[in-house]
Amino acid sequence: MHKAYIISTGTELLLGSTVDTNSMFLAQKLTELGFKVMGKSIVGDNRDTMQAAFKTGLEMADLVVATGGLGPTRDDLTKEVVCELLGCELQIVEAELEAIKQFFARRKRKMSESNLKQAMFPPEARVLHNRLGTAPGMYLAKNGKIVVLLPGPPREMQDMYLSAVEPLLSQESGLKGAKQHTRIIKVFGPGESQVEDLLGEILDKQQDYGVALLAQEGELTIKLSVDNADGQKAEQRLDELCSRITAALGDNVIGSDEASLPQVVASLLSQKQLSLAAVESCTGGLLSKMITDLPGSSKYFWGSVVSYSNQAKQSLVGVKETTLQEYGAVSRETAAEMALGIKQLSGVDIAVSITGIAGPDGGSEEKPVGLVYIGLAYKDKVNVKEMRFVGDRIGIRTLAAKSALDMVRRSLLTEEGAK
Amino acid sequence: MHKAYIISTGTELLLGSTVDTNSMFLAQKLTELGFKVMGKSIVGDNRDTMQAAFKTGLEMADLVVATGGLGPTRDDLTKEVVCELLGCELQIVEAELEAIKQFFARRKRKMSESNLKQAMFPPEARVLHNRLGTAPGMYLAKNGKIVVLLPGPPREMQDMYLSAVEPLLSQESGLKGAKQHTRIIKVFGPGESQVEDLLGEILDKQQDYGVALLAQEGELTIKLSVDNADGQKAEQRLDELCSRITAALGDNVIGSDEASLPQVVASLLSQKQLSLAAVESCTGGLLSKMITDLPGSSKYFWGSVVSYSNQAKQSLVGVKETTLQEYGAVSRETAAEMALGIKQLSGVDIAVSITGIAGPDGGSEEKPVGLVYIGLAYKDKVNVKEMRFVGDRIGIRTLAAKSALDMVRRSLLTEEGAK
Repeated sequence: MHKAYIISTGTELLLGSTVDTNSMFLAQKLTELGFKVMGKSIVGDNRDTMQAAFKTGLEMADLVVATGGLGPTRDDLTKEVVCELLGCELQIVEAELEAIKQFFARRKRKMSESNLKQAMFPPEARVLHNRLGTAPGMYLAKNGKIVVLLPGPPREMQDMYLSAVEPLLSQESGLKGAKQHTRIIKVFGPGESQVEDLLGEILDKQQDYGVALLAQEGELTIKLSVDNADGQKAEQRLDELCSRITAALGDNVIGSDEASLPQVVASLLSQKQLSLAAVESCTGGLLSKMITDLPGSSKYFWGSVVSYSNQAKQSLVGVKETTLQEYGAVSRETAAEMALGIKQLSGVDIAVSITGIAGPDGGSEEKPVGLVYIGLAYKDKVNVKEMRFVGDRIGIRTLAAKSALDMVRRSLLTEEGAK
Repeated sequence: MHKAYIISTGTELLLGSTVDTNSMFLAQKLTELGFKVMGKSIVGDNRDTMQAAFKTGLEMADLVVATGGLGPTRDDLTKEVVCELLGCELQIVEAELEAIKQFFARRKRKMSESNLKQAMFPPEARVLHNRLGTAPGMYLAKNGKIVVLLPGPPREMQDMYLSAVEPLLSQESGLKGAKQHTRIIKVFGPGESQVEDLLGEILDKQQDYGVALLAQEGELTIKLSVDNADGQKAEQRLDELCSRITAALGDNVIGSDEASLPQVVASLLSQKQLSLAAVESCTGGLLSKMITDLPGSSKYFWGSVVSYSNQAKQSLVGVKETTLQEYGAVSRETAAEMALGIKQLSGVDIAVSITGIAGPDGGSEEKPVGLVYIGLAYKDKVNVKEMRFVGDRIGIRTLAAKSALDMVRRSLLTEEGAK
């Protein structure tokens, strides 16, 4: 596979308030084209760091694409640094000089001496016309490497990349149809290292495919990639890998691509024409928010009660006072009564409840922060799961809400299996 | 000035779809602390590019801060690469091993062999405890350079940076007192251009101070900055500017610095010892989530009802069937009955209700997407405000929930003024 490296120049990118959209655009476009992006460097207007970035890029990759630093000021160093590294010389390109002169003439502005610099290129380079600004870009193939320099303003950069650079890169032999084929598998339940253990040799024998794991807020994303000029073969290989992974992970797989837990639960409920209600204590509305983030959720979601106080637990969903006194608000018994209470009140098919200690205060030795009970009332049964989450308040609440959705998901799947 | 270099690791950062928020956070924090950020490298799970990035960082800067690659998998290489470059050796740290063992024990999950790696550090390093996850970080000072390794998940990284790394870096000589003096004022209600009009000459006559406006999700942040080596003078100037701005914007100012609407409402309710309950329709739990995101919210928040279906509106908070039929679920009348219903049921001092059309579907010419009614029952009165928001589903829901909080805030302030 062809390797690419991206360099963004601009002091403002090093202050933390500006998102480097240029490198994101290029990373996406180059990946689509079949390049493997090896890394990115973001540098200021400093000759040494810029030189180090280009050196790394030329060592690690076949293609280096850089944005910015093509302007007329003394801080605009990109072309000089590249020519120094590749042993080229900058010379005035008459056609470009003429174009810049005309640009200023049209605007009735005086061209300054420093603008001359913008018309200087190594003779080996192909000069890329800038339709939206003054700084031309360049495309230079030398010593088996390709260096592309683009202007910094995002609109100018994107226009030049799409109109001039992408066609040139596509023509390069070996790049046609080399598009990377990818698949995403989403997993909920086991942790990263458990998934590694379960996948075992699928991870070990990485040969013609790549596997990357990304853990985020309790969810795990598995990304599979296959490089193959023959698209059909690549897709077949991915199908086969997906089957093996799904077999190894079973019910822990929640779906593919952009599937999220609320979406998966939504489609299972819709398929089966079942309705859902919830009672939340420690998550305080987060579970309901996740469910109703999806448009159309009113079709299967009846509503919920955020029974934050004990009084709300009693008056809204009928948790018994004796249960609260004997077992406490955070208990298996209370979770069960909450789920049964809202199920009866609403008449839905499935009711889910959450009660726990999100912290940072309120924990005890017996009932520590992170202890959460999730109840599920479905058909004539109520199940309660005890969970112990680690994290801060936001983390515990997020994991609790997602685990509740996952419990709904698994109960709907089990039923499917039983049919 | 001290120089810093930032490295982010993670293959997902090279695909163009994920914003590298870690390096932005660090760039901002290090700049505030007086460091000049020389450059950033973003690398995948590749030993060569990672090595090149650390080499450049150590050459160009006094401090290298890297995020990610501290996990248990074979792709997690950061520590190894750093030790190789600085000539250190990785050894098991017993205390960390114990912490990881306990983490798994608490979760009742089996610790896998690969997790051992997370407990290995060079003996010269200071191990940084991870309060929110399993991977510890490290702070290593060697050969006149400082290398800091932080976990990749943003919340873990930020917590570790703020609690452990920033204090250590602040102790380094030569860094004290280089700080810029700043103040933040938060505003809710008027738009950006309205605020510009209200501030008038405070914005025009920018001389020894800077003013920046940032609009985000209905809230407006005003950032004031003063450069002055004399800290006391700078703070005096900021006090004076804050008074002028507060005078110009009145009740629209919700607070300073990190103040958020839920926090301001929380402190007003606590001061006055008043209790709050809510009924949400189109926001589906978002308002309750915002309120309960704050620890200690059980002191003033009774709970809420997410009356997503009409049936829930009737059975849980007693909205009359005739009201729903005559005026519809999204109406001034329904909003009023929702607020009064929960107030009566819960016995709280203040009840707030939201009903509206968050879209993308469900709008009509008469009642378009974005139409939201917010009801507030307090003492013997109920007020309903009609709002028309523009945006997508998430935007409309966010604005609706925040506007409800703001309505509570203003009603509590007015009362204060009347006293």
